[in-house]
Amino acid sequence: MVVSKGNQSATTRQLLLETAERLFALHGIAAVSNRQISRAAGQGNNYAVGHHFGDKVGLIRAILESHNSRIDEIRARVLAEIGYIAGVREWIDCLIRPEIEHLAALDGPSYYARFCAHLAADPEIGYLLYDSVAVSQSLTEVLTGFYRVLPAMPKPVMDTRLTMSQHMVIHAMADVERTMDGPGAAQSVAAHSWSQHCDMIVDATVGLWLAPNTSRDVR
Amino acid sequence: MVVSKGNQSATTRQLLLETAERLFALHGIAAVSNRQISRAAGQGNNYAVGHHFGDKVGLIRAILESHNSRIDEIRARVLAEIGYIAGVREWIDCLIRPEIEHLAALDGPSYYARFCAHLAADPEIGYLLYDSVAVSQSLTEVLTGFYRVLPAMPKPVMDTRLTMSQHMVIHAMADVERTMDGPGAAQSVAAHSWSQHCDMIVDATVGLWLAPNTSRDVR
Repeated sequence: MVVSKGNQSATTRQLLLETAERLFALHGIAAVSNRQISRAAGQGNNYAVGHHFGDKVGLIRAILESHNSRIDEIRARVLAEIGYIAGVREWIDCLIRPEIEHLAALDGPSYYARFCAHLAADPEIGYLLYDSVAVSQSLTEVLTGFYRVLPAMPKPVMDTRLTMSQHMVIHAMADVERTMDGPGAAQSVAAHSWSQHCDMIVDATVGLWLAPNTSRDVR
Repeated sequence: MVVSKGNQSATTRQLLLETAERLFALHGIAAVSNRQISRAAGQGNNYAVGHHFGDKVGLIRAILESHNSRIDEIRARVLAEIGYIAGVREWIDCLIRPEIEHLAALDGPSYYARFCAHLAADPEIGYLLYDSVAVSQSLTEVLTGFYRVLPAMPKPVMDTRLTMSQHMVIHAMADVERTMDGPGAAQSVAAHSWSQHCDMIVDATVGLWLAPNTSRDVR
């Protein structure tokens, strides 16, 4: 079989993407160098990452893009299915389920949830995670719907709950992924499907958002 | 003034501890080497960290210990004040408030919450965070009280909520700390005190734990 130069390049690029995602997921983003990724992907050229992606930021954007288009498709479908009288639970489900459905559909063990958790926690490049979805039309629609049905609460309470729920959901997905990938975590977690985990995560997130605000002096 | 050799060593040790905590908080744990810490602490000897703490794990344990005894004291006091008919909210407050009160009492900007958030997310040494409090008598009492008043729920739901609330609280504290330390975050967050943030975090955590479990097939 003759592999054209263009095809070979695309294959190498995809291999580097998958290798980088796995190494970042397992060891953290700061702990892995472009050189290590090139080597682990079997590239004789230590600068393969630089050649294909420019720098680490370019590589990370490419990893995010490689998942976001598929997540976006699922979100658009879930959004189309949502009823006219959707409440807080339905909108939160619409925020969480697309990524989980995407993770569940990947072949073999997934690494993307752990990659996202490391990225979100990175003080220098964590913003890339939120940048990458800022352009999503379906996400904007879901967030608009969600904010419309939320009970009134002071802005600082809302801001706090927003970042808390983001952290919580990102790390919950990473925990589930880790558990499914190997030993060491609670068996009661490993024994359930992604869809069941999604239900549990949505329940807890709904509770967080609907919790009464007792801090009377916060405005 | 004559500084004895022992005193000087203790001063250097303390300086290394504080420098390491700050650098880890700002850049992440994997991104900072022992050598960088020694240098930033003004130690001519690049191996000062090794000399005082052995390795990175020893250093991290020492940072945790330097806070935990004080947090433990506050927790014992909060625990003594808790009423006989404490409910879920009171126990959660007792789990969250001691660390926040400790952070609020530190001189100048604190870095400990961000340090803990990075540590918790570290795939290799994250366990040190939980190890360090496993010996706390007051924490064991608070957890016992908390579990006693929780509504019944299937074990996987409980396990999921436990890790979700841990991630959420650790990162919420880190977010507040980051906001208080500088520009860039929501003004509505920066304008409030640690105690008000504590109220907001407790409210959301109570909501998470009291949320109805809708996943009927999870056991």
